Amino acid sequence: MTHKNNRHIISVVVENKPGVLARIASLFSARGFNIESLNVGETENSELSRMTIVVSGDDRILEQVRKQLSKLIDTIKVTDITDSTSVESDLALVKIKVPSGRRSELVDIANLFQARLADVSEKHVIIEISGGEDKLESFLRLIAPYGISEMVRAGRIALRRGD
Amino acid sequence: MTHKNNRHIISVVVENKPGVLARIASLFSARGFNIESLNVGETENSELSRMTIVVSGDDRILEQVRKQLSKLIDTIKVTDITDSTSVESDLALVKIKVPSGRRSELVDIANLFQARLADVSEKHVIIEISGGEDKLESFLRLIAPYGISEMVRAGRIALRRGD
Repeated sequence: MTHKNNRHIISVVVENKPGVLARIASLFSARGFNIESLNVGETENSELSRMTIVVSGDDRILEQVRKQLSKLIDTIKVTDITDSTSVESDLALVKIKVPSGRRSELVDIANLFQARLADVSEKHVIIEISGGEDKLESFLRLIAPYGISEMVRAGRIALRRGD
Repeated sequence: MTHKNNRHIISVVVENKPGVLARIASLFSARGFNIESLNVGETENSELSRMTIVVSGDDRILEQVRKQLSKLIDTIKVTDITDSTSVESDLALVKIKVPSGRRSELVDIANLFQARLADVSEKHVIIEISGGEDKLESFLRLIAPYGISEMVRAGRIALRRGD
């Protein structure tokens, strides 16, 4: 009997209280799930936070984790938005090595991707880029030859499309 | 004797392993710190993740938490980038109620903020916006009268400027 090992995007609306994040992170690590990205931030309601967790693993075990998540006292709603039609986006700040004479090449690349030049120094530029995973991966491939000094990614967020 | 109660942006580079996030989240919740936002995602090195934590609290206790963070076996580097010159950015997806006859007003607002229309349905639009906190707050104030149905934010990420 085989089980599918897929990537899931799980959206969890929780009460905005200390300790909730630690409890939820423990649920995943207790099962050895590798969290690809996770973020938690404000929502439309100041008493609630929304966590978006991108995780890969056995579908059956992940279903158990989802049920446990739903039972936590601070959980308002758990949605697996992997299969539904959703808008997804990630955000990255990327510091790239570039000699001043070739800086305009990176400005051109940033413009192609509707990315923003966030800082310029003698030997580096920092570019801010947001969008879907394919867009970010294409951008990173294109700038890789210059050399990435530092990168920080916020991790994916997602909302269901439509009414 | 009074202690300052400030907002800090803490950047933590960690080994990309299960359990690390739960341990770090516990360090903060054990002290009752209210995490405003937290995210963890990929870096320039596939074996490392970078967490960005925005937290408010007593400066002296936060300094203790930073020291404990540095001692964790999976921690590579802890930086408090609050006071340094840094580039900061956040990302939001915002679903806004709007009758079809007034949709163009929201397109105009999105353009003003260099935001992107990510979805359009009969009664809603979803706008993707990235940038500094002031920009996001201005945008949210401007669209508030329409009614925000749902919002997800990735939380701030930050990189030091310069070389």
